[in-house]
Amino acid sequence: MSHFSFEIDSRDGLARRGRIVTPRGAIATPAFMPVGTAGTVKAMLPGSVAATGADIVLGNTYHLMLRPGARRIADLGGLHRFMNWDGPILTDSGGYQVMSLAALRRISEDGVRFRSHIDGSEHMLGPESSMEIQALLGADIVMAFDECTPFPAEEGVAAESMRLSMRWARRSREAFGDRPGYALFGIQQGSIFTDLREESSKSLQEIGFEGYAIGGLAVGEGQARMFEVLDTAPGMLPDDRPRYLMGVGKPDDLVGAVARGVDMFDCVLPSRSGRTGQAFTRRGVVNIRNARHRADPRPLDPDCACPACRGYSRAYLHHVNKAGEIIASMLLTWHNLHYYQQLMAGLRDAIGAGTLARFTTAFRAGQAEGDLAPL
Amino acid sequence: MSHFSFEIDSRDGLARRGRIVTPRGAIATPAFMPVGTAGTVKAMLPGSVAATGADIVLGNTYHLMLRPGARRIADLGGLHRFMNWDGPILTDSGGYQVMSLAALRRISEDGVRFRSHIDGSEHMLGPESSMEIQALLGADIVMAFDECTPFPAEEGVAAESMRLSMRWARRSREAFGDRPGYALFGIQQGSIFTDLREESSKSLQEIGFEGYAIGGLAVGEGQARMFEVLDTAPGMLPDDRPRYLMGVGKPDDLVGAVARGVDMFDCVLPSRSGRTGQAFTRRGVVNIRNARHRADPRPLDPDCACPACRGYSRAYLHHVNKAGEIIASMLLTWHNLHYYQQLMAGLRDAIGAGTLARFTTAFRAGQAEGDLAPL
Repeated sequence: MSHFSFEIDSRDGLARRGRIVTPRGAIATPAFMPVGTAGTVKAMLPGSVAATGADIVLGNTYHLMLRPGARRIADLGGLHRFMNWDGPILTDSGGYQVMSLAALRRISEDGVRFRSHIDGSEHMLGPESSMEIQALLGADIVMAFDECTPFPAEEGVAAESMRLSMRWARRSREAFGDRPGYALFGIQQGSIFTDLREESSKSLQEIGFEGYAIGGLAVGEGQARMFEVLDTAPGMLPDDRPRYLMGVGKPDDLVGAVARGVDMFDCVLPSRSGRTGQAFTRRGVVNIRNARHRADPRPLDPDCACPACRGYSRAYLHHVNKAGEIIASMLLTWHNLHYYQQLMAGLRDAIGAGTLARFTTAFRAGQAEGDLAPL
Repeated sequence: MSHFSFEIDSRDGLARRGRIVTPRGAIATPAFMPVGTAGTVKAMLPGSVAATGADIVLGNTYHLMLRPGARRIADLGGLHRFMNWDGPILTDSGGYQVMSLAALRRISEDGVRFRSHIDGSEHMLGPESSMEIQALLGADIVMAFDECTPFPAEEGVAAESMRLSMRWARRSREAFGDRPGYALFGIQQGSIFTDLREESSKSLQEIGFEGYAIGGLAVGEGQARMFEVLDTAPGMLPDDRPRYLMGVGKPDDLVGAVARGVDMFDCVLPSRSGRTGQAFTRRGVVNIRNARHRADPRPLDPDCACPACRGYSRAYLHHVNKAGEIIASMLLTWHNLHYYQQLMAGLRDAIGAGTLARFTTAFRAGQAEGDLAPL
């Protein structure tokens, strides 16, 4: 296959199950994409990331353009070879990170001028340069350059920000050019304002993209307001293209968003939490640093098949976390990514069987039940 | 097999090739034992440690008695289950670490009273308690409690220190008791003084041990003086028992010591160096932090089969090291442990073939050749 395609094979309410096919391989949807910021999903080898069930990983344009540099990665054969990941890669546009991480940023119609948070060097990032960098990286799925509207924003401010993103989306499309097998996704903005989300969706569809992202959420609005937006936002986008909710989220965010018609997710939460001793399980979040685990011979989750749960007691995970050992990050990250992929597989199975409502009820009951009682 | 045994199958000069058999599995000798200080070979999963070719790992009594505690590990099923390592484990006696790491230590005929470097709690470690702790951990090979004589030491001081260790060795033997399948090793001391090493060896053999270690080296005396001691020290010990040179060393230390009749080694060097960007190769040490690697598409060692060399460029290893990514420690530690195990396998093959002198010459030529020329 040399082209990018998306097929839906089952539906359950608004939820969809299907697959994205790229020349690098297929992505079962709904999909969770682990974040490999600087060319590594932190504390994981790529083979282990694949073993958790991930079909695709995300790379960060902002981080990679600054270190080691997009041109260098291109000279080394592209991001796939650089980071030893054969499957599809999605890169963000850099728009979000440049506004949240860079120093002395100045936004204009052209794009964003900023200084690197690493060495203070000056850079410019706009639709054209973002497309160029993502092409140098060799991303299979490229994101249009946008501004993630801060929250909260007055409607007028949100409208201006969204319209700037739409002009940038058009320039992104033009700069992307004709690249068979590669996809460009547009990003819907509009904060929490339905009419702005509508306007943004129309603008994007006039331009035309291989997929559509829902941006500007998970920025402090809270789950209730996010779900309110998601009650209508996915339906504004074409039914036959993948829908990607950026930067989301907690397990119950994913379950709620899938039920509302979202197909793709990315979030640093499972990997970052793994490094701070937070484990996601079917019975909610477990803080392995808690003293009640220190003599507990039971695994984190007796029903989990990941290496951390098959090979180690809570007492061990507690010990290595407290001792600051690297293996603590390795095992808990693996567990969390495994849990996220298992959750997505469960959602896909439920959509296929038409039992998503029952799956969701059981998921919530498990989360509410809470962790195993102390011994 | 329920007993501990050692067999030599080939000799080349003073060097010996053989195997130690324990109920947990066999150890091909000469053997290098990776150090798993606090219940983990840092930055490695146990399956990966085994994949490098390691038959046995070392655990540190001092660290484990303080955190999480030997009794807790015993309650959790012993150190093997705790750290998920099925093969043999050797534990040190704690004598070395208590003198180098603990606070407010006071040595007496009984043992050493000290405060934990972690929480300041007061502890006592002597021959009897060291044997008890190592039994609680479930170590397959237990080390007698000793004092590692500091270097340099006047002959009188070294003699007193060695004789204290010999009295402790006898108490260790008595406290160890009768434990079929488990081995107790005595430790030769005597600093750089041949007559003291002789006296120590005789004392140990009067007591009788399943194996014998050479202690008090690699403490600042330098390779030349260490080899001078090793020209005679191994020969003072029984031919039919394994000889273990503690805390050694660099690759050329191992090659020189094997030629002098040593069978076992342990050292933090390959794992610690991996975390600081130093890689051991057939062409000497490579510092991956050096800027000359930043655009180099070649692997660390084109002839190495480890995951770091098979999957990644020097440019990538340089990048993740500079970016402080955990994968840098994971990959370089794996490479270094793989290199050490390959070196030991090469030494074993050479002894078997009677070509150790040729192997040593080729090894030294490779080390002297230096790293690949910059591109």
